[in-house]
Amino acid sequence: MVYTPGVGRVAQSIARDPMAAYALTTKGNSVAVVSDGSAVLGLGRLGPEGALPVMEGKAMLFKEFAGVNAWPLCLSTEDPDTIVQIVQGIAPSFGGINLEDISAPRCFEIERRLQATLDIPVMHDDQQGTSVVVLATLKNALKVVGKRLEDVRVVVNGLGAAGVGCLRTLAAAGAGYLVGCDKAGIAVAGTPDELAKIPRSDMDTIARAPSQGTLQDALTKADVFIGVSVGNVLSASDLDLMEKDSIIFAMANPDPEIAPDLAMSHCRVFATGRSDLPNQINHLLAFPGIFRGALDVRARTINKEMLLAAAEAIAGIIPEDTLSEEHIVPSVFDRQVVRKVSRAVAKAARETGVARRQPRVGGVMQPD
Amino acid sequence: MVYTPGVGRVAQSIARDPMAAYALTTKGNSVAVVSDGSAVLGLGRLGPEGALPVMEGKAMLFKEFAGVNAWPLCLSTEDPDTIVQIVQGIAPSFGGINLEDISAPRCFEIERRLQATLDIPVMHDDQQGTSVVVLATLKNALKVVGKRLEDVRVVVNGLGAAGVGCLRTLAAAGAGYLVGCDKAGIAVAGTPDELAKIPRSDMDTIARAPSQGTLQDALTKADVFIGVSVGNVLSASDLDLMEKDSIIFAMANPDPEIAPDLAMSHCRVFATGRSDLPNQINHLLAFPGIFRGALDVRARTINKEMLLAAAEAIAGIIPEDTLSEEHIVPSVFDRQVVRKVSRAVAKAARETGVARRQPRVGGVMQPD
Repeated sequence: MVYTPGVGRVAQSIARDPMAAYALTTKGNSVAVVSDGSAVLGLGRLGPEGALPVMEGKAMLFKEFAGVNAWPLCLSTEDPDTIVQIVQGIAPSFGGINLEDISAPRCFEIERRLQATLDIPVMHDDQQGTSVVVLATLKNALKVVGKRLEDVRVVVNGLGAAGVGCLRTLAAAGAGYLVGCDKAGIAVAGTPDELAKIPRSDMDTIARAPSQGTLQDALTKADVFIGVSVGNVLSASDLDLMEKDSIIFAMANPDPEIAPDLAMSHCRVFATGRSDLPNQINHLLAFPGIFRGALDVRARTINKEMLLAAAEAIAGIIPEDTLSEEHIVPSVFDRQVVRKVSRAVAKAARETGVARRQPRVGGVMQPD
Repeated sequence: MVYTPGVGRVAQSIARDPMAAYALTTKGNSVAVVSDGSAVLGLGRLGPEGALPVMEGKAMLFKEFAGVNAWPLCLSTEDPDTIVQIVQGIAPSFGGINLEDISAPRCFEIERRLQATLDIPVMHDDQQGTSVVVLATLKNALKVVGKRLEDVRVVVNGLGAAGVGCLRTLAAAGAGYLVGCDKAGIAVAGTPDELAKIPRSDMDTIARAPSQGTLQDALTKADVFIGVSVGNVLSASDLDLMEKDSIIFAMANPDPEIAPDLAMSHCRVFATGRSDLPNQINHLLAFPGIFRGALDVRARTINKEMLLAAAEAIAGIIPEDTLSEEHIVPSVFDRQVVRKVSRAVAKAARETGVARRQPRVGGVMQPD
């Protein structure tokens, strides 16, 4: 009586045309937040139950910031084959998959295989989400110091999920020259074109390549340092090796790669992941709007054009005439962020042919 | 800022003691409604997307009737090994698993393997849920006709999920003599003790046993007919083969095993799955209260004692002095049902040692 037989007709309708699930169920507004608990926050392997409160928190942020229904799915396995099989198995119920806190290098293979086989967006937030906010912040930092992205030498330190994600997204954005370092020193270096030639599966494992120099070699004459590694790996004299008007993003948690008070006098722009300092680089600026935009147009995937559009939208929130060394990132509580990011992402999805419908009228997407 | 670093302490706490997830996350109030879309309602294979609106409806009923957070998970595979692996994989996020609309005989193996390996309750509602409401209804019907469960001969027609579930639960309840029929006729027959000796894996496949007689042979001198098969398989003369004061549950959908107006004059008590006739046998009477009770005490499993307690609670909702041929099942909208079923299930869980805590004070569970 309560849901039969009315629901039977709906079910049969969808059985004839599975795409009708977008219109007739919550699929199109639902995201699975999937983790295996292998790399939770900066705390390491906490297991699926340990990851659960983090993924619940993320699900609440999805709802609060973007109106997306998200459900935490914490898995009892760390085996990539099994994780891929599980996510493929549950995919029909969701409009998108947010992978979270899965350790490198397994996360790369899992993300790649899921993207290749599913017809819904799959994003590993630690890679793509973080890299979008880094790119947005870098765009504004470069405006402050008067340099162009295509001219600068960027050092990314730490080649886990976030580091590899940053290298890929910065290469896609056309950064002049990129150097990736890990504990052993320089692991990869090249122009965007050179990096683009590295197969994705090799890019995942560049950290195992023979060292081509020290972190200090990498920093010499570099313009930008992006740290997604561990606390206190930099000294003030390391910063002095860099070009004038250097930009330092020290995102290790809870201790940045260099103490803020030490860094400030040896660089021009300084940003961290911390909320108690200016210029907080927080993935909350990216993932709600990226998924909102992708879901609004029923995107098949989240491609690099959508990520670049999201970064440009985040950077553009701050009017250029108000940019300063201490004001290059919008507040996570600025409600414009989700709206502008989602519009930009939906537009990029349409322009690149991965959208399956026009955005909603009267919904989050509005004519500009 | 929004959920870090506070959540880190919670996550670490749970990592040290995974059972803390019950207190510190929504795990303990969450159920996955899992289907592969292979046997949706009476409509057959509709695929995972086709099953989605049905599972969403079920999730809403869980919330509305029992305050349980349920999420629909419709799977892109029908392979039992893969389904078992997927459900094992996602189990850490949930306090219970509701399997739904998975076709027989695969459903039996899937349920058995999951029950054997998971430390949270797993119930296949088409089997256990339906059988609980059938037993409850039968208890009241027997009071009306003045017979005892241990004396009656019961014919179950249809040996899919619901039929096998009914045979098992009725045997556990001590029904006098049970006969299971399928299209080929009698497939299994015996006393509860005899049926209990059949290994569960054989019980799953009894429909393939050689026929021991016709449905008419089974009905001869039978007291109770329980139809979970297809429409119009019975004639009025078939009913005349039965004992005096016979009880007919004709639950095939949308057409019962025998037309109601035809049956009424050839039996004493008649019930169907339909909401437009008296005595609606609806699983909504069972599953919300069963899961509410199991979750309230963090049960490891749902055992037969909990199912029998649920049936007794449902039957007991109707005061004995108001029972009549046309009033043996409580209304699905009677709010007493969930409260009484959940208390009875929680009590049975404690008494059988599968509860992991006392019920909440001030919550759904209250002192009687």
